[in-house]
Amino acid sequence: MPFAPLKNDTFLRACLRQATDHTPVWLMRQAGRYLPEYRATRAKAGSFMGLATNVDYATEVTLQPLERYPLDAAILFSDILTVPDAMGLGLSFALGEGPKFEKTVRTEADVAALAAPDLARLRYVFDAVTSIRKALDGRVPLIGFSGSPWTLACYMVEGGGSDDYRHVKALMYARPDLMHRILAINADAVAAYLNAQIEAGAQAVMVFDSWGGVLADGNFQAFSLAYTHRVLSQLKREHEGARIPRIVFTKGGGLWLDDMKPLDCDVLGLDWTVSLARARAAVGDGPNAKALQGNIDPNVLFAPPAAIEAEVVKVLDSFGRPHSGAGTGPTHIFNLGHGISQHTPPEHVTALVNAVHSHSRRLRQAA
Amino acid sequence: MPFAPLKNDTFLRACLRQATDHTPVWLMRQAGRYLPEYRATRAKAGSFMGLATNVDYATEVTLQPLERYPLDAAILFSDILTVPDAMGLGLSFALGEGPKFEKTVRTEADVAALAAPDLARLRYVFDAVTSIRKALDGRVPLIGFSGSPWTLACYMVEGGGSDDYRHVKALMYARPDLMHRILAINADAVAAYLNAQIEAGAQAVMVFDSWGGVLADGNFQAFSLAYTHRVLSQLKREHEGARIPRIVFTKGGGLWLDDMKPLDCDVLGLDWTVSLARARAAVGDGPNAKALQGNIDPNVLFAPPAAIEAEVVKVLDSFGRPHSGAGTGPTHIFNLGHGISQHTPPEHVTALVNAVHSHSRRLRQAA
Repeated sequence: MPFAPLKNDTFLRACLRQATDHTPVWLMRQAGRYLPEYRATRAKAGSFMGLATNVDYATEVTLQPLERYPLDAAILFSDILTVPDAMGLGLSFALGEGPKFEKTVRTEADVAALAAPDLARLRYVFDAVTSIRKALDGRVPLIGFSGSPWTLACYMVEGGGSDDYRHVKALMYARPDLMHRILAINADAVAAYLNAQIEAGAQAVMVFDSWGGVLADGNFQAFSLAYTHRVLSQLKREHEGARIPRIVFTKGGGLWLDDMKPLDCDVLGLDWTVSLARARAAVGDGPNAKALQGNIDPNVLFAPPAAIEAEVVKVLDSFGRPHSGAGTGPTHIFNLGHGISQHTPPEHVTALVNAVHSHSRRLRQAA
Repeated sequence: MPFAPLKNDTFLRACLRQATDHTPVWLMRQAGRYLPEYRATRAKAGSFMGLATNVDYATEVTLQPLERYPLDAAILFSDILTVPDAMGLGLSFALGEGPKFEKTVRTEADVAALAAPDLARLRYVFDAVTSIRKALDGRVPLIGFSGSPWTLACYMVEGGGSDDYRHVKALMYARPDLMHRILAINADAVAAYLNAQIEAGAQAVMVFDSWGGVLADGNFQAFSLAYTHRVLSQLKREHEGARIPRIVFTKGGGLWLDDMKPLDCDVLGLDWTVSLARARAAVGDGPNAKALQGNIDPNVLFAPPAAIEAEVVKVLDSFGRPHSGAGTGPTHIFNLGHGISQHTPPEHVTALVNAVHSHSRRLRQAA
């Protein structure tokens, strides 16, 4: 049963470096705690995993930000840690705290026991993708996603968040063989997981390498980037005749743009430390060119609307005038450089989204 | 009353880009909780501030790592937040927690009430510097230090550590005028503070821009780097005939090395995300050249000694053979890319320091 045809393909066109009449915008974690309607649904669901594993709730919260703001894409409501949860590590979220795993992966025996999960255990995710695609009814495209192999490994070894990555790095430095084994398993699992999301209806996929930026130069290439390559090499390029764009976002990865250029992906996500002008010069055009996604500091949203608009203009101007006309060329997808804060005033997001649309149209009209 | 002549000037020579027979090494937070003798002194002192404000205790703990390891420099035992404490904000450290200020600086009235502190309130720091210089008896040089104006502002506005810098960035985006006023006061206070440390006996000074890396491109230059310039422009260049080298370390600042090149300092500190080879090519030679300090991941110290030695060799080889012979040229000071972890096994530090000395001698002998 086919889904409804797409009414707004701006995001997908920009991913593929094709001209658009405005710069598309979506926000990492756009369905989230800053929205009162999200908090109401979460209260009904009882827990974060109760929300994420219930198809109706996941569909409901995915669409909530689209009711408020003219965003150009939706992103599946889920968590980056569903894959290690399905490996049997036991994911939970205490209220107001980060993710926790019941089991950690630290010893040779732990690693030997690790295997890619049965995708049937992730059925709730694929069902949510299909349900959301139906509910979207072609309004905007739906993005699927996963954590990167390295980022998943950080949580699997640490057992949760960390401010020093002591355990995962100790394992990496002391037993690189074990770390490579974990990463290989993760990469194959992530690829299968993303392919199943594509088959269920995801129209683009994003790999969140949220912790790639904590690695030393040299180790980023060997322990994060190499396994992102391994994921991408196994991904479906098309589904039912439509090209499926791939986005890779390494938080704190601005130093390694040249290393990322050979990635077989369409878009690179950037955080606010990176100059969009420099990134465009480095990877925005020529062989292996990428579209760029990002990169305003989410804390801008705590300033008054006039200041938000001024910062949006700075970011758009920093990228400069995007490609226009036929063929392909440098394009920009506006986003935050990190997930939106739960403390964000919802009405400030309106100012941001409207400023992106209006200024990016002006930018295209400028001589 | 003059201090004893210096027996090991390797660190100071490397700061000034002069040849040395080995690569000098010291470690950020080398006097700290990973050492049982430090924990014993701290227990006697009752609290962190009790330790830092007592001249005898501060002298004792500064020298402790030198008794264990053949380090090439000592660094004053103190905290980066002494200056805002002296401004009347009320610094304290609960056991096992980070710093907390009693008062924050967030409103126009808070900023209007802010002023550079009376240096008499920081007398305990200058007395400690003089006491440590005497106790060192010329073994190695003593480094004085301060937090950067931006890093101090982060703590002053947040009231302690932060994982999102929400308050300080909200103030910066909403009221840049107030933020600039705080930073100007901080810069002048930091300059006076470092000059007083130099007069008390500090033989080099370091500015810790620990949170510069959280800023957006453009804002780093305007809100952090500009005020580091303002500090440096007011510093004494010499004291009693000796040149006083200046070190600037921006954690997470690797993207902005070109912007830092014009800084009037001798050394740039780097974290592990930066390739020393690329940094040397960018700023290690030519006009405005800097010595480079860093940059091993402190988590390497959790691996076994053989792995530590291999990682030390990688870092030294990444910089390559330093300048030799007369005049000046590219030099390297070995350090961690961040403070040493309290969980570090002390005997692993022996492996690191010895590996730096032995491999850096081999590197100089290679053809």
